[in-house]
Amino acid sequence: MSDCLLNAQAAQVAAARVMARCDALAELSETPGMLTRVYLSPEHLRANALVGKWMKAAGMHVWQDSVGNICGRYEGQTEAAQAILLGSHLDTVRNAGRYDGMLGVLAAIETVQYLHDRGQRLPLALEIIGFADEEGTRFGITLLGSRGLTGSWPESWMSHPDGNGITVEQAMRDIGLKPHLLWQAARDVEDFAAYLELHIEQGPCLEQAQLALGVVTAINGARRLNCRFTGEAGHAGTVPMSHRKDALAAAAEWMVYVEQRTPQHDPQLVATVGTLQCQPGAVNVIPGEVALTLDVRGPQDRPLAELLSDLLVQAEAIALRRGLTFSSDEYYRIPATACDDGLQAALGRAVTRVQGRSLALPSGAGHDAIAVAERWPVGMLFVRCDRGISHHPAEAVLPGDVAQALQAYVEVVSDFATRRSE
Amino acid sequence: MSDCLLNAQAAQVAAARVMARCDALAELSETPGMLTRVYLSPEHLRANALVGKWMKAAGMHVWQDSVGNICGRYEGQTEAAQAILLGSHLDTVRNAGRYDGMLGVLAAIETVQYLHDRGQRLPLALEIIGFADEEGTRFGITLLGSRGLTGSWPESWMSHPDGNGITVEQAMRDIGLKPHLLWQAARDVEDFAAYLELHIEQGPCLEQAQLALGVVTAINGARRLNCRFTGEAGHAGTVPMSHRKDALAAAAEWMVYVEQRTPQHDPQLVATVGTLQCQPGAVNVIPGEVALTLDVRGPQDRPLAELLSDLLVQAEAIALRRGLTFSSDEYYRIPATACDDGLQAALGRAVTRVQGRSLALPSGAGHDAIAVAERWPVGMLFVRCDRGISHHPAEAVLPGDVAQALQAYVEVVSDFATRRSE
Repeated sequence: MSDCLLNAQAAQVAAARVMARCDALAELSETPGMLTRVYLSPEHLRANALVGKWMKAAGMHVWQDSVGNICGRYEGQTEAAQAILLGSHLDTVRNAGRYDGMLGVLAAIETVQYLHDRGQRLPLALEIIGFADEEGTRFGITLLGSRGLTGSWPESWMSHPDGNGITVEQAMRDIGLKPHLLWQAARDVEDFAAYLELHIEQGPCLEQAQLALGVVTAINGARRLNCRFTGEAGHAGTVPMSHRKDALAAAAEWMVYVEQRTPQHDPQLVATVGTLQCQPGAVNVIPGEVALTLDVRGPQDRPLAELLSDLLVQAEAIALRRGLTFSSDEYYRIPATACDDGLQAALGRAVTRVQGRSLALPSGAGHDAIAVAERWPVGMLFVRCDRGISHHPAEAVLPGDVAQALQAYVEVVSDFATRRSE
Repeated sequence: MSDCLLNAQAAQVAAARVMARCDALAELSETPGMLTRVYLSPEHLRANALVGKWMKAAGMHVWQDSVGNICGRYEGQTEAAQAILLGSHLDTVRNAGRYDGMLGVLAAIETVQYLHDRGQRLPLALEIIGFADEEGTRFGITLLGSRGLTGSWPESWMSHPDGNGITVEQAMRDIGLKPHLLWQAARDVEDFAAYLELHIEQGPCLEQAQLALGVVTAINGARRLNCRFTGEAGHAGTVPMSHRKDALAAAAEWMVYVEQRTPQHDPQLVATVGTLQCQPGAVNVIPGEVALTLDVRGPQDRPLAELLSDLLVQAEAIALRRGLTFSSDEYYRIPATACDDGLQAALGRAVTRVQGRSLALPSGAGHDAIAVAERWPVGMLFVRCDRGISHHPAEAVLPGDVAQALQAYVEVVSDFATRRSE
């Protein structure tokens, strides 16, 4: 749209720079030709240095905090004004794509660059943060960067080992961070008015809707369970169908229910059986036991709990009717994170200005915003990605989509900062 | 019943001897305390020797044939009369029960013993065979004993290796058999009027019907297929239910159909999905591919083929509707073996005399009778076993059931031999 603050042509130039910078960051990997960049690695420091250089070029004051996040600040119209925090993460999974995380940090830098190029200051300061660990690739614990910012590291994390037995504490020392100063990364609640994160969708909804951008309503809560149907193994030839206690047949009936019932509760809920093992597991033996996992997610905790309860009651009923037993063990639970209403509205206005209409959607994947939301209002802007693929080298975004994202980002930051000061 | 040829008291004595002999044979194992007796092993020869001794004591002429079967002959009223062949197998699976196979050989010996004790000759001779290999435990190929008798060994079998790389040919030499004389085990069609085999049911039907004995209508034909649903893997959090191409959900829908549809075709048909693997197989990933096996069996080939066709058409339809693909590969097929009508009738009469009524049922498991039926009419008598368990140390039969089985065996042999000579 022609009336955006960042015009279409300038947005394309900025988007091309973002794409090139994503490529440059993708070179900083522990394995050449395959992007893997984990927390507290040499590549982590090199990525921080490179991003810090770009922040400086955008007129920002830059520092690396005590947890290893790279931080920059662009002052507002008054010194020491409250800031809008913009960011995402710079770490990756193994054999990763180059946009998951990085795109959000680089888009934020372009937003500041836009203001800096015009010598413009907003009523609020802008800070950008490149979080040091969101994925949890190295230590198997996640959101280490953002939980440094919120000051909510559990004590146990320092002694948590990586796959080679190196603890977080040791790894921090190895790259020159001071574990005993970790607390310094935590920021005061007053420091920030809001947190905005731009991220690739990692799902197919925007592509299906033929839209470049969407506004996140919530980051889904999730529960994970190990489930088990126990029946009776038997000879596949000698036991009539009517005499069987087939654990796989019971599991199949339940899986059909899970698939049918979940969207009836709410189209935004998802439920997945991702793994299933049969015992004894031979072509000519009726399965006596089936172990399977259930992963349920949704943008609100209560409907999610109601769905899960429904599914488990039905599993029990199926088992009972068939003379089997069912058991389940919830081993993972993360509550839903609601995005701030005001930020959703601001993002919605900005997106509508850029692409004519907005789409509200939940985030199925986790983000730094989960941790940040413990202390500050959060808003998230999603960018369409090719076929919803992420955590894979085939991860891809269109430069034109990035250009629209940058336009929306400038809009929302200006809009929010201005309204906030009124 | 009091009017049986073998009276109840004598049958109990004979049954006790059968039980003791099953125990004695169970001692002949490659592993002490765990019954495993495979083809061409030292235990195989020891079992043959012991069974041969019992045959001799029952007045039989005894020999070991060139494939390793132990054989005995009890002449009829005239020298060189056609014989009724009675038997089963003496080899076992690993960690086996003690009745699967052996019970049939020992019951046959008691039948001859009954005649011998009374100095009685029938119009037909009786031969007993303890087949050397039915299970296929050692070489992974089955029915080697009975296919020696029918002369239908494929040429390739001689060079077939066991798990240690020892070929059948070498293993035969190792225990003193002469591979080049294998053909001598084959018998003329004229030698036998019929083959009768007594065997534990290996299924729950007799127990459910509260009957000791049943008459087999047919040995089920079987088909085994490797099947595959291929959809699209995806993020368990970000792909809405309506956008998924979940291979496990498709497989579940099909498994429910398989279970529901199979008995609608015919209550004697069975279909089993015994193994299932998900790819990629992670709690938080929608399964993109599911490999599963299908085992279908039934007493008649045509209804079995119709069932299989129905199931595969439905799998294709489910895949098509969901935007997935389905493929299947049939890697094993054995046709159904019908039991001879006359022998079924004779067995039915004998069983009815012993237990008041008879039950006709198909055999879900394979037996030597499959091979023997290529050349001779076959009949099978099933004996109830505890909970249908077989191929397991917990395999068990009641001595009282064995006593009834012996009564029926004497009845049917006498009945058949007498009618045949009329």
